Amino acid sequence: MELFYSHEIEGNICHLDQDESGHCIKVLRHRSGDEISVIDGCGTLLRCRILTDSPKGVDAEILAAEKDWGCHPYRLHMAVCPTKNNDRFEWFAEKACEIGFDELTPTIGEHSERKVLKTSRVGKILVSAAKQSLKAAIPVINEPVAVKDFIRSCAGESTSLKLIAYCFEDERVPRRSIKEVLDGFEGSDITIMIGPEGDFSHAEAEAALEAGFIPVHLGASRLRTETAALTAAASVYFRYM
Amino acid sequence: MELFYSHEIEGNICHLDQDESGHCIKVLRHRSGDEISVIDGCGTLLRCRILTDSPKGVDAEILAAEKDWGCHPYRLHMAVCPTKNNDRFEWFAEKACEIGFDELTPTIGEHSERKVLKTSRVGKILVSAAKQSLKAAIPVINEPVAVKDFIRSCAGESTSLKLIAYCFEDERVPRRSIKEVLDGFEGSDITIMIGPEGDFSHAEAEAALEAGFIPVHLGASRLRTETAALTAAASVYFRYM
Repeated sequence: MELFYSHEIEGNICHLDQDESGHCIKVLRHRSGDEISVIDGCGTLLRCRILTDSPKGVDAEILAAEKDWGCHPYRLHMAVCPTKNNDRFEWFAEKACEIGFDELTPTIGEHSERKVLKTSRVGKILVSAAKQSLKAAIPVINEPVAVKDFIRSCAGESTSLKLIAYCFEDERVPRRSIKEVLDGFEGSDITIMIGPEGDFSHAEAEAALEAGFIPVHLGASRLRTETAALTAAASVYFRYM
Repeated sequence: MELFYSHEIEGNICHLDQDESGHCIKVLRHRSGDEISVIDGCGTLLRCRILTDSPKGVDAEILAAEKDWGCHPYRLHMAVCPTKNNDRFEWFAEKACEIGFDELTPTIGEHSERKVLKTSRVGKILVSAAKQSLKAAIPVINEPVAVKDFIRSCAGESTSLKLIAYCFEDERVPRRSIKEVLDGFEGSDITIMIGPEGDFSHAEAEAALEAGFIPVHLGASRLRTETAALTAAASVYFRYM
């Protein structure tokens, strides 16, 4: 099934940008009058008829709309420290999108080796992964923030389940498995923090606990950052399966 | 923690091959008398003292052995059709090793575009992934076989749970979720078949059901072959968490 993405929708007209238009007209040879399927990136699938078949910008008339197309029964915000190797972070973003998540915040921890991340590349990967896995909603990618700033920004959220996965042992605060904590949660709004290769600092972990985050472990296996992040996303997927 | 892998152990002496020896002597500058940690690939961690520090071949005396080091409480055999893009299959092998599995059989289905796979590359990836994730057991990689031959080879196994994940609908045989089937299983020996991009053929699925495989789905999301395979491995990991 061929999907296009439009972030410019006005009334009953949707506009495809130059990339999508070129693919639609030059590669797939669509012409005026053809019907195409378009996602709005917010969860709605649009059935459209092409009005203008310019490779620079396609305009199409919306014939029908289907909400919550390819959606999942939870809301998952992943806050993940970028990996030293960019490919691994981008790989996580693609796979987590296939499984199903909603928002990605790259967080920079005190032990992070990588302090910067180009979100535009990740954004493109999320668009193609959403189209490839037949989801009308494209996960939001936020600009990177410091771990402590992210924790502060979450401090208010009381209805959501906030989890932080760190590896070091702390007798004062025993960690439960993410599976056990998810099984005991009645709601559907979840935020999970995954640290960098060097793990979260003790100060970051303490700040998270003060802000209402629950410390969890991801089982006995020692996982790389991107594997830990995907495994955590999969645990949410299975919780609501 | 630095780990070496030895597949040549005789009595209380373990021998490192040229790759491992070069890394040990040239890169890490170990010398006779140094203590190193060695995995035997079968689940045992060996504490050893170097006897001969040749970069061509290190011999070390075994001082202590720890069985089932970094092991998991289940036995998982993944039979996965190679992806068109080799990287994606190799990526799955690396990630599944981190999470924990035991045996990988590349299977060639009637709808497989890729009919051949070099297992030597995957074998190297599994060795480094096992060392990186601190496991003394390295998953076995088998030579590729046809899907139907693999099914035949499993027909006898009665104690293990045999699952096949295909995507097409079949009114006669409703598929349950892999989570539901795993939760109802008392044993710990599991085999999971994952099809190619073009899915299993109906004939392959029927042969599997006749051989005692249970048809399962991996939830509502549409997953690529390698993502489906890793998600299935993760579902076993969570079942025994």
